[in-house]
Amino acid sequence: MALTEISTLGEFGLIKHLTEEFPLKNPESVKGVGDDAAVLDFSHDPDTRVLVTTDVLLEGIHFDLVYTPMKHLGYKAAMVNFSDIYAMNGMPKQITVTIGVSKRISVESLDALYDGIRLACERHQVDLVGGDTTSSVTGLTISITCIGTAAKDKIVYRSGAKVNDLICVSGDLGAAYMGLQLLEREKTVFLQTKDGVQPDFAGKEYILERQLKPEARRDIIERLGQAGIVPTAMMDISDGLSSELLHICEQSKVGCRVYEEKIPIDFQTASMAETFNMNLSTCALNGGEDYELLFTVPLALHEQVNQIKGIKVIGYITDESEGTALVTRDGAELTLKAQGWNPLKNPVE
Amino acid sequence: MALTEISTLGEFGLIKHLTEEFPLKNPESVKGVGDDAAVLDFSHDPDTRVLVTTDVLLEGIHFDLVYTPMKHLGYKAAMVNFSDIYAMNGMPKQITVTIGVSKRISVESLDALYDGIRLACERHQVDLVGGDTTSSVTGLTISITCIGTAAKDKIVYRSGAKVNDLICVSGDLGAAYMGLQLLEREKTVFLQTKDGVQPDFAGKEYILERQLKPEARRDIIERLGQAGIVPTAMMDISDGLSSELLHICEQSKVGCRVYEEKIPIDFQTASMAETFNMNLSTCALNGGEDYELLFTVPLALHEQVNQIKGIKVIGYITDESEGTALVTRDGAELTLKAQGWNPLKNPVE
Repeated sequence: MALTEISTLGEFGLIKHLTEEFPLKNPESVKGVGDDAAVLDFSHDPDTRVLVTTDVLLEGIHFDLVYTPMKHLGYKAAMVNFSDIYAMNGMPKQITVTIGVSKRISVESLDALYDGIRLACERHQVDLVGGDTTSSVTGLTISITCIGTAAKDKIVYRSGAKVNDLICVSGDLGAAYMGLQLLEREKTVFLQTKDGVQPDFAGKEYILERQLKPEARRDIIERLGQAGIVPTAMMDISDGLSSELLHICEQSKVGCRVYEEKIPIDFQTASMAETFNMNLSTCALNGGEDYELLFTVPLALHEQVNQIKGIKVIGYITDESEGTALVTRDGAELTLKAQGWNPLKNPVE
Repeated sequence: MALTEISTLGEFGLIKHLTEEFPLKNPESVKGVGDDAAVLDFSHDPDTRVLVTTDVLLEGIHFDLVYTPMKHLGYKAAMVNFSDIYAMNGMPKQITVTIGVSKRISVESLDALYDGIRLACERHQVDLVGGDTTSSVTGLTISITCIGTAAKDKIVYRSGAKVNDLICVSGDLGAAYMGLQLLEREKTVFLQTKDGVQPDFAGKEYILERQLKPEARRDIIERLGQAGIVPTAMMDISDGLSSELLHICEQSKVGCRVYEEKIPIDFQTASMAETFNMNLSTCALNGGEDYELLFTVPLALHEQVNQIKGIKVIGYITDESEGTALVTRDGAELTLKAQGWNPLKNPVE
């Protein structure tokens, strides 16, 4: 079947085509795509605050279309934005999606991208309310802005961690990074093999899914809410545990101790690190793209937090003067460094 | 003086550097740059609605750095977003700015970009509250989301035009397009001349400014508000008068008659069109990037609208069955066509 060129639809035709299957569901979404701006209503509760976050994904920097299915890419692009809203202890409500596309991208390919965005929106009860579509001289550009809400007295900033607070993380760390390593290796093998041998990913499904189709932790926010727990500080882990923890410590003006042995790591992550002969703790500390939640709670909530599924205590907050350190398995203290994934460290021309 | 490479600052250093001189001014802006999301407060008035719009500018598609000063580019990128909020009869309050930059862009160059954004924000009383910064494999990418407010019973959609309403535009049309033609011609001359002869833009300042540094019409919205006038339909003119008018007619399910002789055109625009041997009305109808306001008001408001500085009545709304037409100077009727500037019509690979 021949693919459809986007030029056959035109800009407005394309926007209409891509967004027509996004019926508005939230009462806060008054008017979506189709005018100069979307119209939202947050007046139902005077104690509601509005959260806004934005993230851009650029081809060649954040994703490689050689091994990234468009549907997964759409899902992930939406999810990384939802994750930022959850990290404020809020709930995502609306997104706007802006894409820059080159001629080689077909309408069918964009349909798959929007299928992924739609799935993410359905699962997290978010409305697509606007966006912009343009051509791009080069690669695919996806810029998403997410709007959410939170109760004004339950918003969690990075700056609220206090001495003796417990440091907690959801899920496990390093898997997305190991998934990326595996995909990069298989891409190299694929390109070097004349016959284009298909890679065997059996037994590696988890780390691949963590890289290609991460899930923002709405469930953790809901469980914390049900337990009546409001963290003192919170962030989502996009650049790596070390980097995010240093942000919290810097903005809260505190120090920390994190125990290497407490960092949650999945079996597939550990197995892959061994295959690649990489240091497992380094992967978990600096890997990035986990989209798990990192937060602190008062020491008094130790029992309550321990009872919540999917949360692990990995350390505690100290006075600023004690610095930020990782306590290794043999009891040594190593100063934490932000070696996280930083797309500006080695900008490509 | 040597220019500073962005890699010396790192992602977080760069964001901090670029955004530190944007103090929050609006009471609706609770928390700006520096956390996972910005926090906004729209709870002061239950009749307030929140508007959200987003626009992306890509190098090679929307701007050419050969003749676009970075400060002007920043100003324009902010302004095109403000314009969308005004076109809903709202007031812009916050923006988030996301940039993708290649290695060849210096910190000083980004400073100039943000100087332009800052100037636009100061003039229109808008707070910069967030964003994202990343490297780009190729050109400069600027994606801005603007949040605004409007009284719920005064929001103006594209769909409200009624038969016999007057069609009005602010300012004059076609100037930004002629400015672009002039810049493109001078670029060609410059590139063909070995000595790099500097172009002479004397007497062309107005059309150049219209292209490089457009001004969103906050003043028109304020004057309409002072006169107690709520348009029945409104859009800003970014793709050209024809294209926008067809949007209003389609969404309002009406027709229109626009008088060629009534379309406001500046002297410099007319003079430049003559130099280029281009049809002046075509330039004014299809030129695009004017960022003027196109709106409709009930016939009964004719006198009131005429008294407002900077607004001109150019035609009227008809029944849908009468079609959409331009009435030429000799009384002929030509069907309006959307030949506006469409960045998807000829996507570049």
